[in-house]
Amino acid sequence: MGVRLALILEYEGTGYSGFQIQRESPTVQAEIERALERVTGEGIRIKAASRTDAGVHAQGQVVAFTTSWKLSGEVLVRALNHYLPDDIVARAAFRTRDDFDPRRDARSREYRYTILNDAQPSPFWRRYACLVARPLDVEAMSQASQVLIGEHDFRPFVAAWVSREKNTTRTVYQAEITRQGNLVMFDMMADSFLPHQVRRTIGPLIQVGTGKLSVAAFCELAQSNKLDAAQPAAPAHGLCLMRVNYSEEIAAGVV
Amino acid sequence: MGVRLALILEYEGTGYSGFQIQRESPTVQAEIERALERVTGEGIRIKAASRTDAGVHAQGQVVAFTTSWKLSGEVLVRALNHYLPDDIVARAAFRTRDDFDPRRDARSREYRYTILNDAQPSPFWRRYACLVARPLDVEAMSQASQVLIGEHDFRPFVAAWVSREKNTTRTVYQAEITRQGNLVMFDMMADSFLPHQVRRTIGPLIQVGTGKLSVAAFCELAQSNKLDAAQPAAPAHGLCLMRVNYSEEIAAGVV
Repeated sequence: MGVRLALILEYEGTGYSGFQIQRESPTVQAEIERALERVTGEGIRIKAASRTDAGVHAQGQVVAFTTSWKLSGEVLVRALNHYLPDDIVARAAFRTRDDFDPRRDARSREYRYTILNDAQPSPFWRRYACLVARPLDVEAMSQASQVLIGEHDFRPFVAAWVSREKNTTRTVYQAEITRQGNLVMFDMMADSFLPHQVRRTIGPLIQVGTGKLSVAAFCELAQSNKLDAAQPAAPAHGLCLMRVNYSEEIAAGVV
Repeated sequence: MGVRLALILEYEGTGYSGFQIQRESPTVQAEIERALERVTGEGIRIKAASRTDAGVHAQGQVVAFTTSWKLSGEVLVRALNHYLPDDIVARAAFRTRDDFDPRRDARSREYRYTILNDAQPSPFWRRYACLVARPLDVEAMSQASQVLIGEHDFRPFVAAWVSREKNTTRTVYQAEITRQGNLVMFDMMADSFLPHQVRRTIGPLIQVGTGKLSVAAFCELAQSNKLDAAQPAAPAHGLCLMRVNYSEEIAAGVV
């Protein structure tokens, strides 16, 4: 019998076909499992809180696995970072309950979508922010985003391939637009997210910001209950999984 | 007879062997001259305010050239950005006096050196910040950096290959250390900079921050007049040319 450990991970998604392992493409999961095998000598299968899409980044992804590792979490983190490519970093390791499931046990997730609102692209933000050249009306975007707060059926913001039978009701705790110079950030927190939900929410919100869609039209869209109504999905590279929240008793303590 | 134009450039230096053109290596200058040739049909040689080293970034590099370009600066910028690789961006174009020399006419330059002060590296800052794992005493660094302000002989902070005869007196207007979360920034403004000066200044300042060098020892070093005394030079990728300042009459107006 081993111990169950959780890792907090940061990664730049640019070079990966998403989190989840695939036979032919580079994935974050494959890199982590490879590093874990180098460090522990074990063939470990990890489970993640969120299977981020191709190109999506993370500052606070959580993965869990069972291992016979006996040294400290700090040593594990340092050893993993030695073997991991430099676009993936382990930030911390925690011991958890033996039945910890990072996906099922998550209370809420926080995503940030970053927009560079500038006439010209930026070499420094090209991997992390979506460029919008037309000036954004952040006030209007903020106002529109308020309709998202609370428990609703988010059917309109779901990727087309999601089945009609799926439960698309979620609870959104936060949907906030802020501007910092030429960056506009959209922070969204919910109990859980539907496939492409953040990108399909910020896509129309950008249209509100440029005046292409009225606040009223956005609210109507949000309440329409029409599957796949929200278009377009904003590009993946502006999205980052910031944090996954658990109830306190999950972490049995630092390893 | 053409017009003399200046461009404000932003670039990520990671992929280049510095600004200045070289026969065998990729350089920022070569990319810009190539894009200018595509856009104008002319073989243009540009002159830069600062020849940044390999790996050094810029948010406000200034280059100038003479051309028979007749359309607006905005059109030029857009056309250049179409042909430039995405790690180099033209931000703006201005018409200048016919004898404008971006290097000789500069009143002052501003550089920023960014440090990620964290136990773990970051996928997002790996190209733009130098990692220092030990906690930095920003107070001590600030105190030490005050000795740099004013007109001094900066001989100790000069790259070894600079000749002993060179005038190494410069005027430093600003030398400021600030912390923002786990980032520590060193902002330095001077009339002009000696080769490697910022990296050879922040190198020992980091040692002050970790307690390896006392504030008094740093001040002694700064006043020692010994060529090449300051060691080590901090790595290039933390450095960014933020801005070059000119007197107002330089810009004859937007093209």
